[in-house]
Amino acid sequence: MMDDKPQHECGVFGIYAPDEDVARLTFFGLYSLQHRGQESAGIAVSNGRRINLHKEMGLVAQVFDENSLRPLQGHLAIGHTRYSTTGSSKLQNAQPFVVESALGPLAVGHNGNLTNAHDLRQELLNRGVGLTSSSDSEVITQMLAGGEGRTWDEKLRVFMVRAQGAYCLTVLTKDALFAVRDPWGLHPLCIGRVGETGWVVASESCALATIGAQFEREVAPGEIIAIGEDGPRTVARMPAPDRAMCLFEYIYFARPDSLVEGQTLHAARVAQGRELARESPADADIVIPVPDSAVPAAIGYAQASGIPYSEGLIKNRYIGRTFIQPDDRLRKVGIQLKFNPLADNLEGKRVVLIDDSIVRGNTSGPIVRLLRDAGAVEVHMRVSSPPIRHPCFLGVDMASYPELIAHRMSIPEIEDFLGVDSLAYLSLDGLVRATGHADAGFCQGCFTGRYPVDIHLVEKETFEN
Amino acid sequence: MMDDKPQHECGVFGIYAPDEDVARLTFFGLYSLQHRGQESAGIAVSNGRRINLHKEMGLVAQVFDENSLRPLQGHLAIGHTRYSTTGSSKLQNAQPFVVESALGPLAVGHNGNLTNAHDLRQELLNRGVGLTSSSDSEVITQMLAGGEGRTWDEKLRVFMVRAQGAYCLTVLTKDALFAVRDPWGLHPLCIGRVGETGWVVASESCALATIGAQFEREVAPGEIIAIGEDGPRTVARMPAPDRAMCLFEYIYFARPDSLVEGQTLHAARVAQGRELARESPADADIVIPVPDSAVPAAIGYAQASGIPYSEGLIKNRYIGRTFIQPDDRLRKVGIQLKFNPLADNLEGKRVVLIDDSIVRGNTSGPIVRLLRDAGAVEVHMRVSSPPIRHPCFLGVDMASYPELIAHRMSIPEIEDFLGVDSLAYLSLDGLVRATGHADAGFCQGCFTGRYPVDIHLVEKETFEN
Amino acid sequence: MMDDKPQHECGVFGIYAPDEDVARLTFFGLYSLQHRGQESAGIAVSNGRRINLHKEMGLVAQVFDENSLRPLQGHLAIGHTRYSTTGSSKLQNAQPFVVESALGPLAVGHNGNLTNAHDLRQELLNRGVGLTSSSDSEVITQMLAGGEGRTWDEKLRVFMVRAQGAYCLTVLTKDALFAVRDPWGLHPLCIGRVGETGWVVASESCALATIGAQFEREVAPGEIIAIGEDGPRTVARMPAPDRAMCLFEYIYFARPDSLVEGQTLHAARVAQGRELARESPADADIVIPVPDSAVPAAIGYAQASGIPYSEGLIKNRYIGRTFIQPDDRLRKVGIQLKFNPLADNLEGKRVVLIDDSIVRGNTSGPIVRLLRDAGAVEVHMRVSSPPIRHPCFLGVDMASYPELIAHRMSIPEIEDFLGVDSLAYLSLDGLVRATGHADAGFCQGCFTGRYPVDIHLVEKETFEN
Amino acid sequence: MMDDKPQHECGVFGIYAPDEDVARLTFFGLYSLQHRGQESAGIAVSNGRRINLHKEMGLVAQVFDENSLRPLQGHLAIGHTRYSTTGSSKLQNAQPFVVESALGPLAVGHNGNLTNAHDLRQELLNRGVGLTSSSDSEVITQMLAGGEGRTWDEKLRVFMVRAQGAYCLTVLTKDALFAVRDPWGLHPLCIGRVGETGWVVASESCALATIGAQFEREVAPGEIIAIGEDGPRTVARMPAPDRAMCLFEYIYFARPDSLVEGQTLHAARVAQGRELARESPADADIVIPVPDSAVPAAIGYAQASGIPYSEGLIKNRYIGRTFIQPDDRLRKVGIQLKFNPLADNLEGKRVVLIDDSIVRGNTSGPIVRLLRDAGAVEVHMRVSSPPIRHPCFLGVDMASYPELIAHRMSIPEIEDFLGVDSLAYLSLDGLVRATGHADAGFCQGCFTGRYPVDIHLVEKETFEN
Repeated sequence: MMDDKPQHECGVFGIYAPDEDVARLTFFGLYSLQHRGQESAGIAVSNGRRINLHKEMGLVAQVFDENSLRPLQGHLAIGHTRYSTTGSSKLQNAQPFVVESALGPLAVGHNGNLTNAHDLRQELLNRGVGLTSSSDSEVITQMLAGGEGRTWDEKLRVFMVRAQGAYCLTVLTKDALFAVRDPWGLHPLCIGRVGETGWVVASESCALATIGAQFEREVAPGEIIAIGEDGPRTVARMPAPDRAMCLFEYIYFARPDSLVEGQTLHAARVAQGRELARESPADADIVIPVPDSAVPAAIGYAQASGIPYSEGLIKNRYIGRTFIQPDDRLRKVGIQLKFNPLADNLEGKRVVLIDDSIVRGNTSGPIVRLLRDAGAVEVHMRVSSPPIRHPCFLGVDMASYPELIAHRMSIPEIEDFLGVDSLAYLSLDGLVRATGHADAGFCQGCFTGRYPVDIHLVEKETFEN
Repeated sequence: MMDDKPQHECGVFGIYAPDEDVARLTFFGLYSLQHRGQESAGIAVSNGRRINLHKEMGLVAQVFDENSLRPLQGHLAIGHTRYSTTGSSKLQNAQPFVVESALGPLAVGHNGNLTNAHDLRQELLNRGVGLTSSSDSEVITQMLAGGEGRTWDEKLRVFMVRAQGAYCLTVLTKDALFAVRDPWGLHPLCIGRVGETGWVVASESCALATIGAQFEREVAPGEIIAIGEDGPRTVARMPAPDRAMCLFEYIYFARPDSLVEGQTLHAARVAQGRELARESPADADIVIPVPDSAVPAAIGYAQASGIPYSEGLIKNRYIGRTFIQPDDRLRKVGIQLKFNPLADNLEGKRVVLIDDSIVRGNTSGPIVRLLRDAGAVEVHMRVSSPPIRHPCFLGVDMASYPELIAHRMSIPEIEDFLGVDSLAYLSLDGLVRATGHADAGFCQGCFTGRYPVDIHLVEKETFEN
Repeated sequence: MMDDKPQHECGVFGIYAPDEDVARLTFFGLYSLQHRGQESAGIAVSNGRRINLHKEMGLVAQVFDENSLRPLQGHLAIGHTRYSTTGSSKLQNAQPFVVESALGPLAVGHNGNLTNAHDLRQELLNRGVGLTSSSDSEVITQMLAGGEGRTWDEKLRVFMVRAQGAYCLTVLTKDALFAVRDPWGLHPLCIGRVGETGWVVASESCALATIGAQFEREVAPGEIIAIGEDGPRTVARMPAPDRAMCLFEYIYFARPDSLVEGQTLHAARVAQGRELARESPADADIVIPVPDSAVPAAIGYAQASGIPYSEGLIKNRYIGRTFIQPDDRLRKVGIQLKFNPLADNLEGKRVVLIDDSIVRGNTSGPIVRLLRDAGAVEVHMRVSSPPIRHPCFLGVDMASYPELIAHRMSIPEIEDFLGVDSLAYLSLDGLVRATGHADAGFCQGCFTGRYPVDIHLVEKETFEN
Repeated sequence: MMDDKPQHECGVFGIYAPDEDVARLTFFGLYSLQHRGQESAGIAVSNGRRINLHKEMGLVAQVFDENSLRPLQGHLAIGHTRYSTTGSSKLQNAQPFVVESALGPLAVGHNGNLTNAHDLRQELLNRGVGLTSSSDSEVITQMLAGGEGRTWDEKLRVFMVRAQGAYCLTVLTKDALFAVRDPWGLHPLCIGRVGETGWVVASESCALATIGAQFEREVAPGEIIAIGEDGPRTVARMPAPDRAMCLFEYIYFARPDSLVEGQTLHAARVAQGRELARESPADADIVIPVPDSAVPAAIGYAQASGIPYSEGLIKNRYIGRTFIQPDDRLRKVGIQLKFNPLADNLEGKRVVLIDDSIVRGNTSGPIVRLLRDAGAVEVHMRVSSPPIRHPCFLGVDMASYPELIAHRMSIPEIEDFLGVDSLAYLSLDGLVRATGHADAGFCQGCFTGRYPVDIHLVEKETFEN
């Protein structure tokens, strides 16, 4: 019953707001970033003297109640919500990481993945720092705690010189909040105002809207912003290589109502559907999405193709983690635990089935059979992203080479494997065009194997993290 | 953050299947009926000699794990999932109720509400039966355990003579499963086959699909079906008054993929949208639903009106029960914790906003403001059900008279209160027409105050249950 | 690591005290009665209109916290703490039982065992009452709820006419507290004053001392006391057969500081040790107890024999339920998980080992080996009660016939089995003499098989309860 | 309801045993060391390649079940049980601490307190190590992980050069177990054999007995022992200052059945009672202990004085942490929640009341009143240790200067405050004599303020840890 989707590894949030209950706002901010990570959640708050922390395994709403929020008094805070693969689902990897350092207490929340974490980790061990987890976020925390530099400003700049890969950081010290985005701008990070005097930083603008904050701008790639009692200050804009925004934020990750480069992701996804209709039309009666993530692309496809938009699959809204294993009978019905077909809409119809991506390819086939069993006479699958042929080494859990169906099979083979009448993916050009920023740079590693960062170190080892 | 929706009080499930792991199938059946009640869940299993039970507060997936399922061995079972208002959220009200009786063990699961529960309860107390809960389902259980009749068949028939109101029951004895539906057919109940030799009964057909069972037919109003080793047998068809199916099952309750009277509820709701477009057109640029329940009606409205269907509101998928209270700031942003607007779709647009129903009217206003703040220039609200002017006394938590906005205000007043440019409800005729069974009888109590059953007893008292 | 001791089945408590926080006092009362049952605990409180209940599996201190105590407001309450064998460790057997009846709400807590529960249960089923548990306490509750009589006074008297066996009850109605003791006086029950206007009832006087109440007197065998706003009133003294107080309350059950018939159990147990020394002297160097329960008897034996009292075994104070199974190695060390010997005290010594009772005989042998391994040259075991040759049918979990070592073996055989140099039990006469009330009647069923109540019904069936 | 006793801060355990289930044996070892710390427990196991850890807040039996033990596979392990004051009861202080280091994984369990922790901590921060807790045990762990030395042997020796204060360590690396005891020998640590090829290290010998291991010898003050596949090897015996064993291990901490310097603590405590009787006789009828810890001293006092030993106070065996607050009434009864007097033994008696120590003096007064209320005509209090006039800075939570009654008051003042007829403490000479090793050195800091280690650094700050 797992989704066949890439999985994100984190959402970050930070706030400096003397007039607000910062822990409570951080809670609701994380709540709206829950889609970026469902494994653990944490909030660290400073009252100007010390940092208090609460973090646990679980969803944001499970981790926090009024009792756990009460001790988190202060005027600046960071929060984190984390996804992880099952293997390393451990409390010691939960964030924020908080340590005492020679410059006082420090808390760090991280979204992304360092590609040179192995080297940096080794450096720390050689320097005599014992590490308690396999997380590259602990590596970042200890690099900041013990790295060169007399001030946090200097330490953060030194860190950016040393770090390779994807990182959006919120960093909390005794009296300041820092927002840091890697020079490639791989993942989103934005800043806004809350109330008269407060400032807030978040992975996505939806977190700002949720707490009633005003979106101000995106944090620039390579930028370090410090927020203290005098408001925000750009500490540095590190020399930036070519921009390389993650395309999967456009395709699937970010919430449809979040803004990136001035438009909502919903609009970008409708545009992907339109491009897809232009590139790969189909002779059909209805367009239906795989709910919920493919709905905007299906609407776009329907608009551009003139084929009526409809619903063909109902998703069980209450589905969630169950610890009960299906037996053989249920394994055969399988996908119906998650989706049920709407026979009246499908009976005798030629269907365009829109999905936003195919990773392993293990759920599309059963969905197609479900549609056919419900009476669909033709199924034309259209995917609003290019074939995923390479893993991600920059913070997305995308599956490994042998698991990726488009790495193992040609498109006709996949077509055959899924049992569809036709299959087409959106082209990379079409995808980029749909972002509305064809000139901006994007990370297309998972589609082309050309990553913006040197990843040879990462490939050498098997990650447990 | 509560929905402004009526709340159901239960889903029932039953299975007789010697070749299956009946508790496991019951679990997945309940899992797909979760939308009918999220407060508690329970499963009772018979192995032919004794009945074992597990029930707890919580969602189905929280109540059961492999440890709690393991002792539930047998070949026949019933399951129950329950909604209740906060006041009486207590384990002693959780179902199934299981008792030892002179005829052996007995388990009962109930969906509905008896209108003469007060009288029946008093009779039991006078007969010297101590009652442990305020639930009318315990009243039913003790009526069956101690009522007249030498056999379960007789006892069930006597019960049906005495009971007034809504009841779909699954009843488990040592060696038989019974399915019972009230003579008005107020709520749905259907029967299907599972495997070679098994039979299954459920509130909705979606539960049959989920476990790979074949839908056979609906249980007739007034019918008692017994399922034992010789398969199903109609024990009785009690004399039936006019049919009175609950219209809210068509509007909101039942899952869109469930079948009622031969069509999916999705199709019925698309038809409601079409009727609504015919009755109350609007001069507008886009049609958007209040997600998720109004999506089919919005699709229907768009189809019939020719105005493009779009999405205008994103619902936080991970929203759920949080124990954290919003502070004043957050209370002001309010509805944004649940919905966020898609500005690009709304900017400068005249919007038709489709909702399936308005109960108290406390969330529609904030949604309208959200749309306007996001740039909508006109908001025309269309509701795919008639105004709710009366409470329900037959198993639906619909709010009381003073809470119902359509009881307190005229439609122009509501229009004004919500701040919409125009407001229209679907007519009762239109609603009935959209069911495709205009000749069948429906309960229209909440719209007209004319209930199919005498409710004078119920109105006299304040319910705790 | 189980004790080789009989197990009690309950402690009861009741309070009527308008000026006190009755739930809190009930909590601390139960806390001091924890030795009478460790499986579940519950408190029911009446505020004059309705009864509120909280009960759960676990120790008193686990079941209650300030949150669960808060709703228990009122001025009269009963509490219960329950032991049960593993088989029926279920929440539905936890007490108090609370039901609504024709006379209003009713709560019952019970210590003991009805010998005619089977017949009474059958009567209830035939009368049409569905029963939810296997507990004879639910039988009592439903007998009171539905039995003959226009008032609670009458109902309780009718109950006492019908019931056979052991029962100390605390009964709570809307506005009165009742204390009821069976005509044989099998288990203890006493009454005291708390504050200016309050009254309290408890299984043992230690509960009165713990909450600062003054002991007034024991409830007489066969007596019903009602406590309402006018203070206590004797409703009835039912015709009493011969007195038959449980001798094991003297030997092991009741706390040493509790008063029975005007003396502490500690004094009675010291006297048992003295009698034992007189009846069965030993030529030895030290007297040591099996801690903790045999300490007073060992002190008495030392005093009467002139042999110095010493400690030879240390009991692990923190031992408690562990879910970790010992492996083979640990099974061999076995008893050392619970007791460790004091080699300096034992080395080269002839030891009198005092225990208060032997039930199955499975722990005494390992203890004796432990003493020998630690250097004891002779071990003379002395037991301050007679051989247990029969089970108890009156509320004590004593083990069944085949488990009782003294049922299966002669004393020389036991001596041999345990590996002691000599073994002697206290005579029944000696035991009775040590109570200081040789003329009072005692239940000696477990020693002689002559029970004060007809138990033929009980023996016929296998109990689950 | 707190004890008026000093509190220990830890028990340590380690095992190297290829033929055993080392995690299981560690569990039972910790179980028998539970008296040394009840706040948290943890076990770290190595299988030769990596270290797995489980630690949590709670008692040993609460922290571990078969599920948490299962992943702890390997052939060498350490375990830890920790006490802490409420203030710092946090999971991040729980032990063992496990880190990855340049030499591979490392786990550390610590009993004691470093007096120069502040300086060492500052050094680590300056070296750029971020610290996650306030615990000096994390300081030790990071010192070992990053300290000078190419091997663990060297690193441990460097550590011992740098560390001041009390420390018994068990250290686990990938393939070796180390046992380390500070040069003063402040707290006990011993080594034994388990099975044919296994070795075990523990704070007290009772842990060896519990798992069926044979006591071999104490680890010498200043000794480092390494245990690998070739068995134990003494890595170093660091130059030792004067021996300074903690006298409170003799008085109260260590379990009575544990061996120190060749005798059980029970024997040492009986000897303390004898010395006390010689130094401070009393004209009285009975000797009673404050149970349980003062029982051996009371037996010794009785033996030497010829006054009969008796029990006068019963301790509630089931008392434990309750979250229910006593109200005013209960606060007045106070001590009776924990102890109840035995009136028959006390009535008209002149009582010698033996306690092993008085720290704050807040429970002795209520106990004395309890005895008088129960009829004692005279109460002569005798304490089997000298007055505690100074705090401990070496790993015992002894209270601060202003809390110590013997710091604030003279003995006549205390006598008066407690309301006793006479009060006498054991002399320091008498205490040392009772150890049987008058020539060995002992830490007498809490009695005389003369500590074996320089503590000026510690006194300067307020500890949170």
